[in-house]
Amino acid sequence: MRFLHTADWHIGRRLHGFDLTESQADAFTQIETIAKAEKVDGILLAGDLYDRGLPSESSVEQLNAMIEQLNLTDQIPIYAISGNHDSAIRLATGAQWFKATKFYMATDIKDAFDPITVGDTQIFLLPYFEPFAAAQYFDDESIVHLDQAVAAAVAKMKTLFDPDKKHILEAHFFVSGSTTTDSETQLTVGGLASVPLETLKDFDYVALGHLHGRQALQADNASYSGSPVKFSLSEATQEKGVYILDTETMTREFKPLTPLRDVQLLHESFETLIDPIFYNGLDLDNYYGITLTDTKPIPNVLARLREIYPNIITLEREKGYQASLRPSALNVKHQDPMALLEQFYELVAKDDLSDQQKQWAEDALKKANKEVQP
Amino acid sequence: MRFLHTADWHIGRRLHGFDLTESQADAFTQIETIAKAEKVDGILLAGDLYDRGLPSESSVEQLNAMIEQLNLTDQIPIYAISGNHDSAIRLATGAQWFKATKFYMATDIKDAFDPITVGDTQIFLLPYFEPFAAAQYFDDESIVHLDQAVAAAVAKMKTLFDPDKKHILEAHFFVSGSTTTDSETQLTVGGLASVPLETLKDFDYVALGHLHGRQALQADNASYSGSPVKFSLSEATQEKGVYILDTETMTREFKPLTPLRDVQLLHESFETLIDPIFYNGLDLDNYYGITLTDTKPIPNVLARLREIYPNIITLEREKGYQASLRPSALNVKHQDPMALLEQFYELVAKDDLSDQQKQWAEDALKKANKEVQP
Repeated sequence: MRFLHTADWHIGRRLHGFDLTESQADAFTQIETIAKAEKVDGILLAGDLYDRGLPSESSVEQLNAMIEQLNLTDQIPIYAISGNHDSAIRLATGAQWFKATKFYMATDIKDAFDPITVGDTQIFLLPYFEPFAAAQYFDDESIVHLDQAVAAAVAKMKTLFDPDKKHILEAHFFVSGSTTTDSETQLTVGGLASVPLETLKDFDYVALGHLHGRQALQADNASYSGSPVKFSLSEATQEKGVYILDTETMTREFKPLTPLRDVQLLHESFETLIDPIFYNGLDLDNYYGITLTDTKPIPNVLARLREIYPNIITLEREKGYQASLRPSALNVKHQDPMALLEQFYELVAKDDLSDQQKQWAEDALKKANKEVQP
Repeated sequence: MRFLHTADWHIGRRLHGFDLTESQADAFTQIETIAKAEKVDGILLAGDLYDRGLPSESSVEQLNAMIEQLNLTDQIPIYAISGNHDSAIRLATGAQWFKATKFYMATDIKDAFDPITVGDTQIFLLPYFEPFAAAQYFDDESIVHLDQAVAAAVAKMKTLFDPDKKHILEAHFFVSGSTTTDSETQLTVGGLASVPLETLKDFDYVALGHLHGRQALQADNASYSGSPVKFSLSEATQEKGVYILDTETMTREFKPLTPLRDVQLLHESFETLIDPIFYNGLDLDNYYGITLTDTKPIPNVLARLREIYPNIITLEREKGYQASLRPSALNVKHQDPMALLEQFYELVAKDDLSDQQKQWAEDALKKANKEVQP
């Protein structure tokens, strides 16, 4: 059997305020073309169909049309699970009817224990779920973390293995060893929300969703397809696409997608950026994250650059306030307000607080602390 | 053929802040029981399945379970249309699949021209739509008002009439001659958003939704089933239920539903209301709209009454500020602010404005007018 593995469509997503509807529609058309050209026996759609639990009407319309096209018009079976961005309850609407045309929409942990056999393969659909749902399902209060929950689910799935078949798992979570980009939601902080690859070793293939870059995991029997579209600047250098899995050989081939509008980084001086010799070589419809190497002030810099590059998503200074210098959310929580203020002042003003300024800040913080305490 | 006609389920609706989930679930169970006992060939569900376009997850779960129960478990065909409270786009999710089990979910004006033939009957499903959708569909800019839009739709439906069949129309709008209650949304102000009964004369039966009281329309070939549950105080005296339609005789029989918690009006003195001899005869779990006949102040009156009647939805004074004396929304729009203020003062203070007060109000209104003008 041949399957197309894709995930993380995130219908409704925006990129720094820019509407991605057209980019997503274009990527979809390429996926459909690949599925038909490769004569696949099904599409594995590994979660995060929508960007949010409460998608807009236009997102609902877009995803419905895509699914109808693939499943009803092209008659391609779909094996889908809900991801952490989806509302499982909303996505479940109609699921009981969809099976009739081989559109499987799994939204509940119990769906994982109802594998679908197709040709030489058993497909297990494990939607995104919270550990407490597993604790409830298995009536086992000791299940607190995701790794425990998945281990319990895998143990139960293995009791359902048909030894004469290949076994595919479709799931939506963070597998240990993966590296993340900026556009995935961190499920939890603290490192407990990941699943060791070892837990998944008895599956012939694990079709994963959640991480948007396929390079995030290197494993023989598991991969992230990645998202079909770049959703953040940190994905600028990623090649997007889908996998074609052949269950006879259990090998997979990556099929790249061509972005309608690419996301790219530019690291140049203002003078270079406004030079036609430079920009005539670029696709100016792309989304650009620009880092200026200049140190002097440039009046109306964003407006002037947007005349050439209409889709600028970020504009930063190499030697100015840089994203990479921002204290991370995690660090912020562990630092005292005075230390944070000093860092912030240094970032913005390129100077240290004077003793007088420190005194003022300390007085103000003392006063503020007094006010919030009873 | 025998059909059960119901409408206006409004899943997700609240009654003066009280959750109606249980009442709606109970009414549903009664409807299901009637449908099975009467061995109906289908259920006509005439719009406003949800109370709002963006229903909560729990509402989605509740409606999905009801539809699955009727259509998949009980195997009863469902002929449904979207109403003005529904999001047509959201309700359309899965509709292409639902037909396989005879669950017809019409959400677009074009669906009206794809009648379903069942036994001796053709069923036309005309969902709620805005006149501009009809203007667009018929490519006719002269269609501006609902009556014109419905006339055009009916003319087209009549070209599809099979002369050997009975013709049922299912629709969701205000038919002229109907009287409204407080719980229907007024579609527009001005009286143009209604359809004359005459327009519908060529149908053997018109199964209507929109108005919550079945008494709203008296016609041989058309009726509102009304909502299964009382959604406002103005529905207190209505008997709720469903119709069973027999297409052989084209007669209909009303089947009442027993409310889980009724909505009732009490018009009594405080002394009577707190007298066990009075209230022991009542179902105290009901929702009560109370009008006190007392004229003297009663300390903590609401809290004291709620000790006996936990589900009080309104508390008014017969001789105080009364709902029936409120200027209607329609009147308000046609009166000048000074006249409204005088009415309001009289209602609240039981006195006329003094000349000095009038002068102050006029000065303030003049000043306010000046501020909003450029």
